[in-house]
Amino acid sequence: MPQARVEALSRFLGGELLGRAGQIVDRIDPLESAGPSSISFLSNPRYASQLNGTRAACVIAAPAHREALTLLPSAIVCADPYLAFARLTQWWARQIARPVAPGIHPSAVVHAQAHVDPSATIGALAVVGAGASVGAGAVVGSHAVLEDDARIGGHSRIGARVFIGARCTVGERCILHPGVVVGADGFGFAPHQGRWEKIEQLGAARIGDDVEIGANTCIDRGALDDTIIGDGVKLDNLIQIGHNVRIGAGTAMAGCVGVAGSARIGERCTFGGGAIVLGHLEIVDEVHVSAATVITRSILRPGQYSGVFPFDDNASWEKNAATLRQLHGLRERLRALEKRLK
Amino acid sequence: MPQARVEALSRFLGGELLGRAGQIVDRIDPLESAGPSSISFLSNPRYASQLNGTRAACVIAAPAHREALTLLPSAIVCADPYLAFARLTQWWARQIARPVAPGIHPSAVVHAQAHVDPSATIGALAVVGAGASVGAGAVVGSHAVLEDDARIGGHSRIGARVFIGARCTVGERCILHPGVVVGADGFGFAPHQGRWEKIEQLGAARIGDDVEIGANTCIDRGALDDTIIGDGVKLDNLIQIGHNVRIGAGTAMAGCVGVAGSARIGERCTFGGGAIVLGHLEIVDEVHVSAATVITRSILRPGQYSGVFPFDDNASWEKNAATLRQLHGLRERLRALEKRLK
Amino acid sequence: MPQARVEALSRFLGGELLGRAGQIVDRIDPLESAGPSSISFLSNPRYASQLNGTRAACVIAAPAHREALTLLPSAIVCADPYLAFARLTQWWARQIARPVAPGIHPSAVVHAQAHVDPSATIGALAVVGAGASVGAGAVVGSHAVLEDDARIGGHSRIGARVFIGARCTVGERCILHPGVVVGADGFGFAPHQGRWEKIEQLGAARIGDDVEIGANTCIDRGALDDTIIGDGVKLDNLIQIGHNVRIGAGTAMAGCVGVAGSARIGERCTFGGGAIVLGHLEIVDEVHVSAATVITRSILRPGQYSGVFPFDDNASWEKNAATLRQLHGLRERLRALEKRLK
Repeated sequence: MPQARVEALSRFLGGELLGRAGQIVDRIDPLESAGPSSISFLSNPRYASQLNGTRAACVIAAPAHREALTLLPSAIVCADPYLAFARLTQWWARQIARPVAPGIHPSAVVHAQAHVDPSATIGALAVVGAGASVGAGAVVGSHAVLEDDARIGGHSRIGARVFIGARCTVGERCILHPGVVVGADGFGFAPHQGRWEKIEQLGAARIGDDVEIGANTCIDRGALDDTIIGDGVKLDNLIQIGHNVRIGAGTAMAGCVGVAGSARIGERCTFGGGAIVLGHLEIVDEVHVSAATVITRSILRPGQYSGVFPFDDNASWEKNAATLRQLHGLRERLRALEKRLK
Repeated sequence: MPQARVEALSRFLGGELLGRAGQIVDRIDPLESAGPSSISFLSNPRYASQLNGTRAACVIAAPAHREALTLLPSAIVCADPYLAFARLTQWWARQIARPVAPGIHPSAVVHAQAHVDPSATIGALAVVGAGASVGAGAVVGSHAVLEDDARIGGHSRIGARVFIGARCTVGERCILHPGVVVGADGFGFAPHQGRWEKIEQLGAARIGDDVEIGANTCIDRGALDDTIIGDGVKLDNLIQIGHNVRIGAGTAMAGCVGVAGSARIGERCTFGGGAIVLGHLEIVDEVHVSAATVITRSILRPGQYSGVFPFDDNASWEKNAATLRQLHGLRERLRALEKRLK
Repeated sequence: MPQARVEALSRFLGGELLGRAGQIVDRIDPLESAGPSSISFLSNPRYASQLNGTRAACVIAAPAHREALTLLPSAIVCADPYLAFARLTQWWARQIARPVAPGIHPSAVVHAQAHVDPSATIGALAVVGAGASVGAGAVVGSHAVLEDDARIGGHSRIGARVFIGARCTVGERCILHPGVVVGADGFGFAPHQGRWEKIEQLGAARIGDDVEIGANTCIDRGALDDTIIGDGVKLDNLIQIGHNVRIGAGTAMAGCVGVAGSARIGERCTFGGGAIVLGHLEIVDEVHVSAATVITRSILRPGQYSGVFPFDDNASWEKNAATLRQLHGLRERLRALEKRLK
């Protein structure tokens, strides 16, 4: 673990230092479990009371908490403590990262016609196809497979066992976690005499800059046009993105989301875990979909949308679910009563 | 991109050529984005009006649109334009495919007792176990793992990073996309004094001919009998098929579907994305399950089945969901009113 | 297939032998498909009638069925036949297992500073990083990747293509199936001016003893603290476990479950397939969640919980779902009627 003087961290974070400038911290911890060498943070004012009991050596918090902070060994006052915490983790990660030496691991299988920047790193047993290119400072993990003509932008980190299909592209500063599959065939078939005739998927998948993609997530190549993931999109693990989907810049999706083919999703949207978006829909910018909600038609107005069956103890659920199957009939009966009473 | 005379394509597709026989096309595009060297198609009559504005050099369409087609540079009249489009993509894919040389990549680890047909291809760093066999013309991708006694049929394409477990079989002309896992253990345990005693999974998984399986999809091996995927089944990405499941010929499932152990699913069924099928159920032929629907009991009649909570703006959903938890009570109150009014 | 005298099996299972001690069996089969050399079992009394028609050479069953068992060639009477069946499969699996020779496959890439027990096995093309350790008798499959300082406990079986991230640990006697990803980054970002600032994930993931994890399942590393999977936990395929989740000993989850970050789940819980647990919730011991149920708030009492939209033929579902969006209004109208009739 790295050691840091809070004064240096405060300068790095652009905050105002309170208390002992020379205080040393060597751990980041939540307020409640912080110890005497921990730096911690308060972002949600609901937890402000935890400032009283904390043993942290330093706490990052907003100006509103200045008074409570003065009772601590040290503190860093920041306008946006959660953002400061994010940047602190980035600083921390750089301290503990093992240096990655540029170059191609001798066990990797790199085609003679691949273009690997001299400052890039290719991990053990990776495979890089003909015409594929890897940009400056990029890191390709062990067992990654870049097919022919795949392109990885500068400073992107391609995790172990990632697959990038032929002609697919990944932008700059992206992070792809282990098991990601970019550019498998989209799911397209023409029915013919009780069988399915394959529609070859001739498009590719294009991932913008600053995109992060979670473990085992799949992004299919397009049928004719490309599947497009905008800049700054963040996708969690085990997400399925169908062919020809377009996702606008800055949209984020939690784990297990599924987006069917040709859906168009706007910018700065968020999707809770397990949400499903049907195909050929349009969702405008700044739409927020709750976890496990199934989007069955286009959404043309920003806002929060939900559709989850409320869980209950099993016996109550059974009674309500059984009644739900008669709901339309109940409405008719209610209507009849209302008529009679008019 | 390949270049083609529409006359040759028309002959290949078995259609009737209208307009300029010598017209050259070098792209396939949707009607709306087609350019002057594009070939396009109209399959859904709802979009017939797009024929007027298109810049396509050639359009594949049904006889009903003959009149509009005569105004285009060229056209191919086919009884089933979507099928013709599928076959056109197949022709196109063959033109742009890089040839795959048969043989075993020197970096692959192939057991001395494996049987690899001389016309098959084994990719870089693939692993082929003792007793495993790979049929004529089959292609095994980089990093694929075929365990002992696994069998791959002729002309199948096993993608990068696919895993085929011991004694599991894949038929002819199958396509398995990257990350597929065939033949991991099914999920079977006997409860014993608050712990789970493993039931070893002694069966295998058997995949028929002409099956396509999407990226990161998992098909478990059976407990005693085998898990069986019928001929011509098409599975999208990130699908889970439990042990001892049987899926009939020609059934198709969209992404993120989960099928629990021992379910029996008929032929020519379709499942929308995210649907869930509980274990030990029977579903007959030609059942169509809507996306995100949870099948909790057997379905013995063909038809379309659905069960999704309709999404709404969050405030409306909250009110309706809260009321849903009292639904059975509402029915009782309605009944009481009806009684009083009798 | 192994051959066994039922007398030996009865002794191994601690049961009471009925009938011919020298009966040979060479297959395990369900009662209904058993043949004259099959051993079978009856655990669910509902299927007791199958004892009459079975052709099995030996059946494992509870004392209550003693009478019917005496009519069979042989039988093994056990207090818990399902547990006996589980142990029989374990015995069987050991007979048919190909021996795994300890040692490091010459194609594996093992760092000079990795610690591999001499009795452990490292498969073809596996990668083991600096400081990583592999315990006695453990088996690491082909193409597995153990990053720096990862730790695998004694007698664990790490499947092909499993990824264990830096500093993550796996206990003893665990089974991880192909494609598992342990220790990818959790999904954490601070919003900042319409973009997402990455929160580096500084924690690890710790897997207890006797844990089984299904194919392509993902367990993220913690943000600050570790993600913790308790002893004896069983996870099926394609499950997503978010950062900082804690799962208590003996809990089991079926396929496609998603657990969002920082959820705390108790001991001996069960989750049906496709269930979703939102983040920062607490679920106490012995909670049982039905398939496809979405847990949106903490559960503080043991019991069975459900919340699934009951599926129906599509036309009925459409009518009921449409009415559901007016449910709160229906309640208001019912209330109004009740008032008028008071």
